[in-house]
Amino acid sequence: MSTTVDVPESSNVGKGKAVAVARPGGWKKGLAIMDFILRLGGIASSLGAAATMGTSDQTLPFFTQFFQFEASYDSFTTFQFFVITMSLVAGYLVLSLPFSVVAIIRPHAAGPRLFLVILDTVFLTLATASGASAAAIVYLAHNGNQDSNWLAICNQFGDFCAQTSGAVVASLVAVFILVLLVIMSALLLKRH
Amino acid sequence: MSTTVDVPESSNVGKGKAVAVARPGGWKKGLAIMDFILRLGGIASSLGAAATMGTSDQTLPFFTQFFQFEASYDSFTTFQFFVITMSLVAGYLVLSLPFSVVAIIRPHAAGPRLFLVILDTVFLTLATASGASAAAIVYLAHNGNQDSNWLAICNQFGDFCAQTSGAVVASLVAVFILVLLVIMSALLLKRH
Repeated sequence: MSTTVDVPESSNVGKGKAVAVARPGGWKKGLAIMDFILRLGGIASSLGAAATMGTSDQTLPFFTQFFQFEASYDSFTTFQFFVITMSLVAGYLVLSLPFSVVAIIRPHAAGPRLFLVILDTVFLTLATASGASAAAIVYLAHNGNQDSNWLAICNQFGDFCAQTSGAVVASLVAVFILVLLVIMSALLLKRH
Repeated sequence: MSTTVDVPESSNVGKGKAVAVARPGGWKKGLAIMDFILRLGGIASSLGAAATMGTSDQTLPFFTQFFQFEASYDSFTTFQFFVITMSLVAGYLVLSLPFSVVAIIRPHAAGPRLFLVILDTVFLTLATASGASAAAIVYLAHNGNQDSNWLAICNQFGDFCAQTSGAVVASLVAVFILVLLVIMSALLLKRH
């Protein structure tokens, strides 16, 4: 009696699978899974960017009578903005994981996908703004600017510069991932 | 006889309109037209940003024996990048107008819309990067930075600072419009 119950069950499952593969939206499931994996990569890179920038701090081994030479991310408003926005982006990406899972389970539901693409676009703008402004300051620290008499500080603060440059590179990786996420979401929203 | 001909004609027109309004995708036409109008606004603001930044040039009325004090957008790599990318964004938006018109005529064709949303996302990133990095430099020019001994140059170059600040504001308007365009395209791509 148990076998007679089992057989129709298994054949049902097989049918369900065959239908899912044959459907024109079969690639959507793959893209939705890749969306989830890319989000994990985005979390890693944005968290890495925030942590690298947040721990950048260098004190020079010599000091005058009046003050010690120290550079940290606190010295630059842009770098503070960078740490805050990169943490926000990482937090958003963590919170977006459940929605991404829902979108994998129901690849044809437009609601969660639309929610994700709108917030992705907003956080893409935030991440790009903070990454680009930090890059502008890092460039100045490396090269200085003659006309405004801003000297390159990387000769003195080598480690500080290396660490902030690394953070900027990590943020650009996060920006690239967010661009991919938005474009993939647009593909997934398209009527097949 | 003319009245009998007129009556079915007008009733046909009335029917056609009623059908168009009753369709579930009727709001799509409105969004598509707004897309076109927003693109015109984006062209104006990005062209304005590029032109304002590109003409920023101030020479101080005093000079020493050896050199004259002059500030122009050429002095800052970031501002050169700003002029180039803002011109690119304006050029892209002009070239995207025909595709936007096609999307108005055929609101249910996903091809042109998908093309637009992918390129919009890329140029949104470009515009945000140039606007944010220019904003970082403008902020430095206004406030300076004590720890790295970069002095605020806006005391001397007031007009230059005002003009570059204006250009940054115009670029942020362009960024806002591009974010709206991407989100509207996502809404238009959604299966109704």
